[in-house]
Parts: sequence; C-alpha cells; structure tokens
Amino acid sequence: MRILVANVNTTASMTEAIAQAARAAAAEGTEIVPITPAFGAESVEGNYESYLAAVAVQEAVRDYEGEYDAVIQAGYGEHGREGLQELLEVPVVDITEAAASTAMYLGHKYSVVTTLDRTLPLIEDRLLLAGLSARCASVRASGLSVLELEQDRERTVEALVRESVRAVEEDRAEVICLGCGGMAGLDEAVREATGVPVVDGVAAAVNIAQSLVSMGLKTSKVRTYAPPRPKGLVRPVAGTS
Amino acid sequence: MRILVANVNTTASMTEAIAQAARAAAAEGTEIVPITPAFGAESVEGNYESYLAAVAVQEAVRDYEGEYDAVIQAGYGEHGREGLQELLEVPVVDITEAAASTAMYLGHKYSVVTTLDRTLPLIEDRLLLAGLSARCASVRASGLSVLELEQDRERTVEALVRESVRAVEEDRAEVICLGCGGMAGLDEAVREATGVPVVDGVAAAVNIAQSLVSMGLKTSKVRTYAPPRPKGLVRPVAGTS
Amino acid sequence: MRILVANVNTTASMTEAIAQAARAAAAEGTEIVPITPAFGAESVEGNYESYLAAVAVQEAVRDYEGEYDAVIQAGYGEHGREGLQELLEVPVVDITEAAASTAMYLGHKYSVVTTLDRTLPLIEDRLLLAGLSARCASVRASGLSVLELEQDRERTVEALVRESVRAVEEDRAEVICLGCGGMAGLDEAVREATGVPVVDGVAAAVNIAQSLVSMGLKTSKVRTYAPPRPKGLVRPVAGTS
Amino acid sequence: MRILVANVNTTASMTEAIAQAARAAAAEGTEIVPITPAFGAESVEGNYESYLAAVAVQEAVRDYEGEYDAVIQAGYGEHGREGLQELLEVPVVDITEAAASTAMYLGHKYSVVTTLDRTLPLIEDRLLLAGLSARCASVRASGLSVLELEQDRERTVEALVRESVRAVEEDRAEVICLGCGGMAGLDEAVREATGVPVVDGVAAAVNIAQSLVSMGLKTSKVRTYAPPRPKGLVRPVAGTS
Amino acid sequence: MRILVANVNTTASMTEAIAQAARAAAAEGTEIVPITPAFGAESVEGNYESYLAAVAVQEAVRDYEGEYDAVIQAGYGEHGREGLQELLEVPVVDITEAAASTAMYLGHKYSVVTTLDRTLPLIEDRLLLAGLSARCASVRASGLSVLELEQDRERTVEALVRESVRAVEEDRAEVICLGCGGMAGLDEAVREATGVPVVDGVAAAVNIAQSLVSMGLKTSKVRTYAPPRPKGLVRPVAGTS
Amino acid sequence: MRILVANVNTTASMTEAIAQAARAAAAEGTEIVPITPAFGAESVEGNYESYLAAVAVQEAVRDYEGEYDAVIQAGYGEHGREGLQELLEVPVVDITEAAASTAMYLGHKYSVVTTLDRTLPLIEDRLLLAGLSARCASVRASGLSVLELEQDRERTVEALVRESVRAVEEDRAEVICLGCGGMAGLDEAVREATGVPVVDGVAAAVNIAQSLVSMGLKTSKVRTYAPPRPKGLVRPVAGTS
Repeated sequence: MRILVANVNTTASMTEAIAQAARAAAAEGTEIVPITPAFGAESVEGNYESYLAAVAVQEAVRDYEGEYDAVIQAGYGEHGREGLQELLEVPVVDITEAAASTAMYLGHKYSVVTTLDRTLPLIEDRLLLAGLSARCASVRASGLSVLELEQDRERTVEALVRESVRAVEEDRAEVICLGCGGMAGLDEAVREATGVPVVDGVAAAVNIAQSLVSMGLKTSKVRTYAPPRPKGLVRPVAGTS
Repeated sequence: MRILVANVNTTASMTEAIAQAARAAAAEGTEIVPITPAFGAESVEGNYESYLAAVAVQEAVRDYEGEYDAVIQAGYGEHGREGLQELLEVPVVDITEAAASTAMYLGHKYSVVTTLDRTLPLIEDRLLLAGLSARCASVRASGLSVLELEQDRERTVEALVRESVRAVEEDRAEVICLGCGGMAGLDEAVREATGVPVVDGVAAAVNIAQSLVSMGLKTSKVRTYAPPRPKGLVRPVAGTS
Repeated sequence: MRILVANVNTTASMTEAIAQAARAAAAEGTEIVPITPAFGAESVEGNYESYLAAVAVQEAVRDYEGEYDAVIQAGYGEHGREGLQELLEVPVVDITEAAASTAMYLGHKYSVVTTLDRTLPLIEDRLLLAGLSARCASVRASGLSVLELEQDRERTVEALVRESVRAVEEDRAEVICLGCGGMAGLDEAVREATGVPVVDGVAAAVNIAQSLVSMGLKTSKVRTYAPPRPKGLVRPVAGTS
Repeated sequence: MRILVANVNTTASMTEAIAQAARAAAAEGTEIVPITPAFGAESVEGNYESYLAAVAVQEAVRDYEGEYDAVIQAGYGEHGREGLQELLEVPVVDITEAAASTAMYLGHKYSVVTTLDRTLPLIEDRLLLAGLSARCASVRASGLSVLELEQDRERTVEALVRESVRAVEEDRAEVICLGCGGMAGLDEAVREATGVPVVDGVAAAVNIAQSLVSMGLKTSKVRTYAPPRPKGLVRPVAGTS
Repeated sequence: MRILVANVNTTASMTEAIAQAARAAAAEGTEIVPITPAFGAESVEGNYESYLAAVAVQEAVRDYEGEYDAVIQAGYGEHGREGLQELLEVPVVDITEAAASTAMYLGHKYSVVTTLDRTLPLIEDRLLLAGLSARCASVRASGLSVLELEQDRERTVEALVRESVRAVEEDRAEVICLGCGGMAGLDEAVREATGVPVVDGVAAAVNIAQSLVSMGLKTSKVRTYAPPRPKGLVRPVAGTS
Repeated sequence: MRILVANVNTTASMTEAIAQAARAAAAEGTEIVPITPAFGAESVEGNYESYLAAVAVQEAVRDYEGEYDAVIQAGYGEHGREGLQELLEVPVVDITEAAASTAMYLGHKYSVVTTLDRTLPLIEDRLLLAGLSARCASVRASGLSVLELEQDRERTVEALVRESVRAVEEDRAEVICLGCGGMAGLDEAVREATGVPVVDGVAAAVNIAQSLVSMGLKTSKVRTYAPPRPKGLVRPVAGTS
C-alpha cells in the first residue's frame, strides 16, 4: 500500500525527517510518499501559518498524480484535515488525533508536550473538535520552536522530559504524546527518562492509516465529507516569498 | 470609523449585498469597506472551500493598504477568524459568533437556520470552539444552496420560516439566527412569520465591531493571537480557475 | 435612546459612579437613567443580598414611569436578569454577561477579577447559566469588599493587577473582565500594568444595549420570558432597615 | 425534630396541602411547621414570581421565631435556596434537588413532569446549577397551571401519565419526578399507570432533611454560604396587592 | 426494616467496623445485617480487586436467604452497584454516591479524601457515571492503604486533615467526603480540625436506604435494571487463595 | 505476534466465530488465540452478566500460561478492561473502544447499533468513561438478543440496516459501529445497504492491538494500571450452573 505523508511546513529537511519516521513505523510493503507544500511557512507555529498550511497541503495533494491508499497530515494541532476528507475517498489521518487515540489505549489520561506556548490553544482546539479531549490531562509547551528542535537534540530531550515529568506528576498524565511532527524519533529517550509510554504521532498515524486501509474502510461521503459541489473556483498557487 | 467587511465567496454581487447589509446596520460615521477574496469558491459550502476562503481573506486583508479600525469576516461557519486575529491588532469579528452572542441576550436558547445540510457540522464546530454552543438549541438546514438564496426570495423565506418554526416548536429555540451572509435582509420577513426575534449576523457583527472600537478594545497579543514570528514564508496568490 | 441602568446596591454614590461610567461609554444621543433600589443591601456580596437586589431592581423598574429602550442590570454575578426579561419587551443586559461576551472577541480565554472570595461561586454560576463559561479561564478574588474598592484606589488597582497577572500567567487568560460594577474606570490602569485588554462590564453592557436597540431587537416572548400571567400578587416594598 | 416547610406561593390552601404531604412522609417525632410567604404570587410560574418567592421565603424564615432543625423550600425549579443557606446553619433542602438526587438511586435516567411549558427552563437551570442534570432525561410540561392541578385531579393524573409515558418511551427515563409542590399525593396514581418509580419532591426533601439532621450535618460556612456580612440593609415587607 | 451492608473486602474485622458505623447511623428499628464476600481481596485498592469484589458481593447477596429491604455496597469507588440493581427489587445504595449526593446539600463543592493515589481514577469514574461529578472539586489521596487506616488512627487523622485542608483551600471544596468504608468514625475528628462538614459514606448510605424504603421506592425495572434474562449461567465460587 | 482474544460469553461457538473474525482481520504473522471464560453467562446482556464476564475473563487470562503480545476483550459495552490492564503489561484493547476510535477517523459522528434496548446504557457508559462519546450520535438497539443474532442472519441484517438508516438520517451519524462481538462478518452487508462505512469492533481491535505491539507500546504502570499490590486474595472458580 502507498501512503502520502504531508509535511505542513515548507522545509524540505523536515519532510525528509518525517518521511524517515513514517518509514520506520510502516509495515513491510507500505510505501511512504512524502509531500512538501508549495507555499506557506518554513515552520508552522500559529493560526495564520496553520491555515496557509491547510490550503497548501490540500492543493499539493490535489496536484499529486499518483495512486495512494491513505493520506497523513503530519502537523500537530493544524487546521485542514476536514478539507482533505472532502477531496478524497481514501482515509485521512491527522497526527494530533492519531497520537491521542493511541495514547488512550495505554493509560487513564494523556498529556501532549509540544513546542511554543502560543500553539497550545491550537492543539486543545483540535482535540476538542476531534472529540478526544475528555481524557487529555494537559497540553504543555517545551518553549522550543519547531526549528530549534532540530538544532540541539540534547536540549530538546531535556525540555521534553522536564515537561513530561510535570505532566505525569502535576497533571496526572499516564502517557505522553510528542506534540510536533519534528519530534519523531525522540520517543525512546523520553520514555526512558520518564518511565511512561510515549507516543509519536507520525508512527501512530502510519499504523492507523494502515489499519483503515487493511479493513477496507474509507471516508464517509454521506454528509460532512461529501465531495465539494461543482462550482466556479480559483485555486491558489505559490506567490511571492 | 472604518470597518473592512470580507466576503468569503469570490462572487462580487454577494460582496455588494453584504456591504449593503453592513451599511444599513452601521452607525452614522462608520464607513464599510467591502473586500472580495482573490481566489477560492464562488460560494463557500464545505470545508475545502472554507479553508480556501480563510486563506484568501487573510491575504486580501494583508494586501489592503488603507487604514481601518476593525474587520468582519462575513461567512457563516467558516474557518479563518483566528488567523486574522494574529495578523491584526484591530478587533476581528466573525458573523457566526456575532449572531450567536447577540441572540443569547434575547432568549433562553437560539437556533441557526442555514443553507445545506452538509454545512451544519461546520457551524456546530465553530460555535463549539467559540464557547457559544451551550445555549444553541439546533442548527437547521433550509436545503437551499448559497446561490439559490439569491435567485428566489419567496422560496427562500418560505424555507427559512419552515425550519425556524420547527426550531421554535421542536427544538425549543426562542431566537433565530440567519445562518448565511447571503440571508442579510431577510430577518424582518422571518420575524413576522414566526413571532420570535431574528438576528442577522452581518448586522450583529457591525454593531459588535463598532462597540469594540468605541471602547478602545483590541485583540490580546499575549499568547494565542501574538503576531506570526518572522520566518521564511511563501504567500499564495490566485492561480488557475 | 434612553437606557435605564440599575444599581443593585442601595448606595446612592455607587449609582452615581455607575451612571458616570455608563455615560462615558454611551454614544451621542444615548441618555443614561440611573436607578437605585428602594430596599436591599448597601453593597451586595452574597446570595441573600443578591436575591434582595434582584427583587428590588425588578420593583424599581416596574415603578419607573418614563419611557426607555433598554435596561442594564449593573451588578456582577447577581440574580435577577430573567425576571426583568419577563416584565419587559425592551432588551435587558446583565453586566456579567456583557463583559464575558465582549471579552470572548478579544482573546482565547478570559478571567474575571472580582471582590471577595465568597462571591466567586455566584459569578461562576451566572456564567454557567448564561452559557458563557466554556472560555472562562478563572474567576479570581482581589480580597477587597465592594465598599473598600471606592476608598483606596491605589490599593484596589494593586490588588486587581496582582490577580490579573496570575490569571494571565497561571490560568492562561488573555483578557481580564473587571468583576464589579464599582470597578468602572479602573480598566485603563489594569490594562497598562498587565498588557492585556481589560473589559469593564458597564461599558460593555451600554454598548450591547445600544446595539440591540439599534437593530430593533427585543426580548423573545415565546416561552421563557413571556409576561407573567395575570394572578393574585402582593408586591414587596421597603420595610425596616 | 422540627422542620420548616416553606411554600413559595401565597395561597394558604397550598401551604396546607404541602404540609400534609410532608407530614405523611415524616418520621415519627418529626414536626412539620408550614410557612406561607407574606408577599409574592398566589402561584409561582416564572422567573419574576420565583424571585419574589425567593425573597419572601427568606424574609418569612428570618422572621420565624421558633426553633427548627432544617428548612425545606417547597417550590419546584425556584430561586432562593442559596440565600437561605447563607442565613442559616441548619440544612436547607430544595424539593427540585431532593427529587432528582432521590430518583438517581432508582434508575439510570430520570425525567421531571411539571406544569407549564414556560417553567421548563427554570427547572433545567436549577438542575444544572445543582450538578444534578447529567442523568436528567428530560423535563416535560403537562400544560396545566399550578392552580389547575388542584381543581381537577382526574385530568391532572391523565396529563401526568401521558407525559410520563412519553418520558419513559421517547426520552428513555426510568424514574419520574413530579415537578410541582402541588402534585404531592399523585405519585401512587402515576406509578400504577406507568410502572416506573415516581418521586414526590416534598416527601424526598423531608427524608433528606431528616437524614442530614440525624447525622448532625450542617451547612458549610467556609465560603459560599458564610453568613451575610454586617452592613446597612433595608428589608422588604408586603406592600400593595 | 432490615438493611444488608456488604463489605467489599474479605477482611471480617472490616465488615464488623462497617456494620458498627452503619448501626450508629441507623434509625431505631433498622436492623443492619453485614455481609463479607466469599472471595476477592482482603482490601480492595484497584480495578482488578474491585471487579472481584463486585462479583463476590453479587454472589453473596444472591446466596443470602433472609428477607431485607435494601442493600448498601460499602466500598468507595468500587464496581458492581448496577449488577445488584438488576438482581434485586429493593433499593441498592453505593456509599460513594451516597456521600456525594449528601455533601451536595451542604456546600457549593465537595472533595473526596481517600487512600492511595492509584484509586483516584476509580472514584472519579464512579462519580462521573453516577452523574455526581459536576460539583466535585477534587479527589485526593492520603497515601495510606486501606489496611494502614486501621493500624494508626492518629496518623490517619493527620493525613486526612492535611488533604482536607488542601481540598478546602486549593481546590475550593466546602465539604469533605471520607473516601473509604474503613474511615467510618473519623468524620468528627476531621470536622473539628477543618471546620467544614464531613460526610461518612456508610452513614449517608444508611440514611438514604432508610429514606427510600420509608417512601416505598424500589429500583426501576423498565430497562437498565430489568432482571437478568433466563439463560445458561455458571456462577463462580471461592477457589484457591 | 500472538494476540489473546477473550470472548465474554461462555458459548464456545461464539468464541470460534469471534476468533474467525479476528483471524480474517489479522496481518500475516499474527496468531489469534481465543479464550472462553470458565464461568458466567452463555450470552452477556446486562450488568450482572457483564460483571461476571469481567471477572471470568480476568481469571482466564491469568490462568493462560503461554506467551502473548496483546489481549482483546471481545464484548461490546462490557466491564473489565481496566482490571486486565492492571494484571498485564501488554496492551489490552476493548472492542467497544476500538470500534469507536476507528469510526471517528471516517466521519463526523458515529452510531452504534447493538442488540437489546437494555444494553444501551452499558455501551453509553463505557464510551463516556473511555472519553469517546463526544462524537457518538446515538446507540441504537436492533431488538435482537445475542443468541438470536446467530440464528437468523437475514433477519439480523434487516434489523441492523433499519436502525443504521435511522441513525444516519435521524441522528446524523456518518459511520456505523456493529455493537456486538457476534455481529462480526455482517459489516459488508450493512455497508452495502446503507452506503456508509461500517466498523466491526473485533477487526478494529485486532488492528489496534497489532499497531500498539508494532510500535512497542505497553500499558502505563505509573498509576491507574499499576499491578495489584501483594495481599491476601481468594480467586473465584467456576461453581454450579
């Protein structure tokens, strides 16, 4: 089977890192096809950039000409999943939701540890809409930006562990979700330091996408995710940077 | 004071109709400046189109070079308000929320009567995120598309009245919100037929925007709506239709 | 237009202060008519006194013989708004709700900073019933009584700023509502010290009342706020002090 | 032990009927002392009248000079219980809450069947504030006014049974609460016709009051229900009818 | 009347202590019949043991051959109440729910102070399902195991007081529920040290059971608690220890 | 990998049918080991039987001596998952939750169609505790008992389709979950008749268990699901039938 994995950032090295994490999680016989949006921000950290990413990913997926069995939107707390679901019959899996629904099988409450303080409300809002917030103990910020995550792995792990421990002790979380596509690969280090299960959204999403495909399940077209109606439409393209 | 009123559809005649409704509601001395997005759908009726609209409106507002005191996003149940709030210091008012918060001053529960069945979840989701759903009795569809609304006013009023009466009698609503920017001007007819107060979102938003400006209140920049951080960014522009 | 502004306390100097705040917020052409209840407490700080105030305000409004276009109940977290809505066709606006619905246009979460610890549950209950609590980060007490507020403005501002800062930093509020009619006029000082928007309920209520009137909206009479049915009734009057 | 049972209506015959129901439910050795408010409505059916009742009951209880161990407020969906709790150390039991908390021991969901449609929101609001609404299947109106209840017992039972059956079959209730102090004594007839347990609020309240007294439990004075602070206060008395 | 009081632990001395507490709370003429389960854990402190207790209590009650008017399940936060309700027509009262519904008559919010940290989610889940969590301020652990409670009364009271004070000051509770059947008799000491009402679940359950019986109320058999259907069934018995 | 699949009923033919469904869903290399409980009901349809099943499955799993990587509890709306999680380090997946979390990836709202009316509250309660009820449109009963499901496949499909269509049209579900382990294999027929995706809980659970194992994720042992503490314990065994 073939799964499109859409980075929400325009940074190609992040696309590659996400693809690598997806491949590490994929079953034998699953091909991961990474996609980078043609416009938007080099790192998505807020609503304006997130909306840009939603549209850029939609257009990139519409323009992709190959066959595929599922799509993963690899941004944490980002807008856009519902639009992809309208455009496609194949399942669409958002990594925020994938991490949450996976974590709920492992403990009574879970927390998300993410990047900047300003992105917390976005993640909380996405979990609320997804109906996955009832068992969310907290969403916590490490204080590191998306791009900083890549630059200093040691400092990143340290910050993630610090907030994870607080989530477990103060917020009563029993599972930690790594709240950024760029944190893929850090789960093992955080698990070792905290002693609780750590869920990486990209790995979780790959597994869920594979499961949906293997069960032959597709997006319901009966109402919310019916295809857009035929009408006059001007699509956006990359403009000035 | 000057208020930008952004249509979410690319149809210029709708922009004009919305502007007219806004002007009818505006206080003396308030100038209404209508904006039409450069890309997206001629009528927004679903998530894919709504995300396009969110981004098209954001870019249109960024490109607008004049001065203004507030922005109204004149789409019902649409994405995008949060992005505008990051970009701007002046208040941003969404008509979905404006209608709801206004209706809550007039009765114990309110209902929204809108266009197509498929758009109900979008409106419900927007009200949930806005924290305005606790007193929402129902969101009901008239079955008419956005473009049909304009073509046959009699049939439109008939459909709106039919669903409004059901909302009042079956769902126990006491106030009706007209759930589409294109329904501006129909409030009086529905009120007469149903006997309950009817709120038009555009008028409500103009009043709220004026109020916020007159109180000197601006968008909080302390966290969620802080300005986007400086970074590499490719902005979208209108592409092929 | 003429707006009745009802103080909930029997202290005439507070009525005057509230009226002044209302006038400062009112548009040109809006006349503010202050009302002081004939019985009840000199300062309302609890349920017993709040119920007295509810009834005293109702009777005072019933007894008022002039014309008016809207009524504002200028007590924070007080009972009584629903009774006035039954008695009147013109809109009734409670300052607790006015502050909250206004704050929700300015940030992701808001907090209320009020007087005594014991009044917090009253405010929380009013926000819950009004359907405006989903985005309330916290209600915090300054520890000052209603009457103390007037006596030492410096100490009052200091206490309000202290709790506002905690609300922003610990409870993640992005907007502050001043939780007492007697705090009118302190918004600017708190805004300067905290850097977040500060909403005064009296000013917010005046603006909302003006908006409702200008849109021609009245209280729904279809169910909850239908006029009291004709029946044997003994009205209360001021008794012994 | 002695329990004050406060009617919320000014109709003395109703006070007597409620007292009789309370005595029928009381344990040996429990004395029931009925109280009729000095002002307010002959039958309470809405917010304005309910606020009057709240204050009239408070003042009547304050004026009562004998000893007593608990107070029951015998109005369904009425305001005022919190004010009494501030005034008194002895337990205060509202019949709306007593019926609900009792019903929850008997079935998975309960419904309330009451008088007029317009009073439904009052009951729903009281249950919400009391934290007892999660297992409330519905609140339904018989369409009979408080005074009609007394006039035609047969018609009353018929209307109650009709709505109770709908509550069980359509709303999935498993227990019925009789939603009016004036329905005392009708529980057996409704139970026989519907086959589900039927709870009378007055009987439930007497039992709960007796239980609290026998356990030596009193109202918490630590915060919300602390006694009113000493201050200037003008109490209301009965005025013109 | 006769009330069966089922200990959930297999420790006979705890059965006796619970029976003693029940008798102290019972009215004259109420006979308390204690039951100890034939299998399960000597002290129940987690889900596995709680499920064992649920079944052991069910079987013990089924095997009890005498007459009785009500059953109390005397375990805090334990599974099993619904099963007993299916088996029996007489009322079944769980002490977790009895304590909570009693506490709600005494203050605006209540907290539960219990044994080990690991049992908190069980209690929270039981309160959620019972529809009694809306006014629960917190569930706190003393850190003492069930068996330790009995061994050192002084240390137990000290730990309970410490957490109760935190519940009142930090979580804003106004009433404390003692969250373990084995804490019966400690209410007075905690009340004296904290100044807030303290509810013992066993006493509360006895009073509620008595009340239900005296009102002639039985478990609704219309749906959820209908008797098990006749079918092939192998019942469990005590096996190896 | 090896997955234990525990039937909750004592009927061996059902164990076989469930195992067959599990094998059909399993990936190559996954071995399905079915388990039948030693005591309990031949078909579980209520709380009493469900508690028996919970304990019987726990004991059966404890007694199973082989190696395995995950456990599936194949009863819809049954008690017991939390107890297994305490006993084991390997993941435990309940089919009620598996179906729900899977359905949420395919549509905006899902419904469950199950057997008897009396089991609806059990399923609703399980979904509430699991934090998966926010997007549940309804739980509907086909009116068929567990054993009837097997006897007449045509009638079963007809009943399931009838309720599924109602769920989609009246309750606005977009996905259907088959709410009984014994409905495995009927998903295709229901999907064809209704046009919406249909999720079988056994297949969903197998996929989720496989995913958790392949990601190396285990049950969190930090609090709620810590192993039972060492203590005196009498385990139950099968007794008389």
